[in-house]
Amino acid sequence: MEQPLQPKDYQKVPEPTLRRLPWYLSNVKLLKQRGEHFVSSTQISKEINIDASQIAKDLSYVNISGRTRVGYEVDTLIDVLESFLGFTNIHKAFLFGVGSLGGALLQDSGLKHFGLEIVAAFDIDPALVGTTLNGIPIYHSDEFVDKMNEYDVQIGVLTVPIEIAQSVTDMMVAGGLNAVWNFTPFRIRVPEHIVVQNTSLYAHLAVMFNRLNFNKIK
Amino acid sequence: MEQPLQPKDYQKVPEPTLRRLPWYLSNVKLLKQRGEHFVSSTQISKEINIDASQIAKDLSYVNISGRTRVGYEVDTLIDVLESFLGFTNIHKAFLFGVGSLGGALLQDSGLKHFGLEIVAAFDIDPALVGTTLNGIPIYHSDEFVDKMNEYDVQIGVLTVPIEIAQSVTDMMVAGGLNAVWNFTPFRIRVPEHIVVQNTSLYAHLAVMFNRLNFNKIK
Repeated sequence: MEQPLQPKDYQKVPEPTLRRLPWYLSNVKLLKQRGEHFVSSTQISKEINIDASQIAKDLSYVNISGRTRVGYEVDTLIDVLESFLGFTNIHKAFLFGVGSLGGALLQDSGLKHFGLEIVAAFDIDPALVGTTLNGIPIYHSDEFVDKMNEYDVQIGVLTVPIEIAQSVTDMMVAGGLNAVWNFTPFRIRVPEHIVVQNTSLYAHLAVMFNRLNFNKIK
Repeated sequence: MEQPLQPKDYQKVPEPTLRRLPWYLSNVKLLKQRGEHFVSSTQISKEINIDASQIAKDLSYVNISGRTRVGYEVDTLIDVLESFLGFTNIHKAFLFGVGSLGGALLQDSGLKHFGLEIVAAFDIDPALVGTTLNGIPIYHSDEFVDKMNEYDVQIGVLTVPIEIAQSVTDMMVAGGLNAVWNFTPFRIRVPEHIVVQNTSLYAHLAVMFNRLNFNKIK
């Protein structure tokens, strides 16, 4: 938290690069487990079948330099990537909608290892309000603005039914949240300065089903 | 299940189209709730801020034709989209790795509404093997090949630690699964005929964190 900000960390890195960097990170972690001390982009390339020049280009966004013939130091590369990707700082979040998926996410403690801590959830179901799930308190949605003063939160996780996806988003934005992690299949509208990340499990299922059927009749 | 296959359903639809179609579906469902009987691509376009011509093009992959000035019939469009996207047929799946995320997915009954039913899970932890979670039995990984004969399963959901992501994938493929829904941040390698869909929650977090920081210093 107290490290000086590296300006380079905050350029607008292309989304495809940001999505590939975690692949390199997990791969380098594996190489470390195998006892490697140095790794080159050529080595990563062989393991994960991405062009070495693409890997070198992606890594150029990160503040690390490799040494000719030797490559990147494994420990340093892991530290720098984890920090660059934001996994080493805890970002607090509220979750909206403790249904099946919302409840599941509250129980996934793994998110915390990647920098996301859901500190409270909101719902309107009287059977849920006032209870906790995996130690996380569930409040009534009406308490959201109060809780914004109590917790230091920037991110909202959206797992409500599609009928209220937009109105809950509007409420989140009005309350001062800066990012929405949207798990609904609904395309929400937000002001330009709000960060949205769409993770629709159902869209991924649609792609998978289509490809399976395509292979079957090919 | 007994409907004749429409050849058009099984062309290789572009992935961006497949990812946008669920947006249209959820939007049309909302319009239906509001009492609309017909919907045009212009109307959907206004709601979700995607070009009307793009929407019409995406919908041209689906077996439905709109009427000039009136548009698509809402009920028909919902049925045809749900069926086209594979949400109305149940696709059975095995899940590998009942850790934090795997356990969470077993508890997300919502997947079934979109055509995916996880019928069994595999792990090696003696504390888990032989138990059930949300009614789903957890078997020892050694039993996988036996269970392939018992269940009619094509899809494997991968939620194991990265160290064994590749070896478990190899086992899944050797056992006859045709698709891998990969939730690990590891880039798995598979033979060409195997369908892979990567859903890395951590990669999405990385994008969100980076955009948040970028907005902060902008």
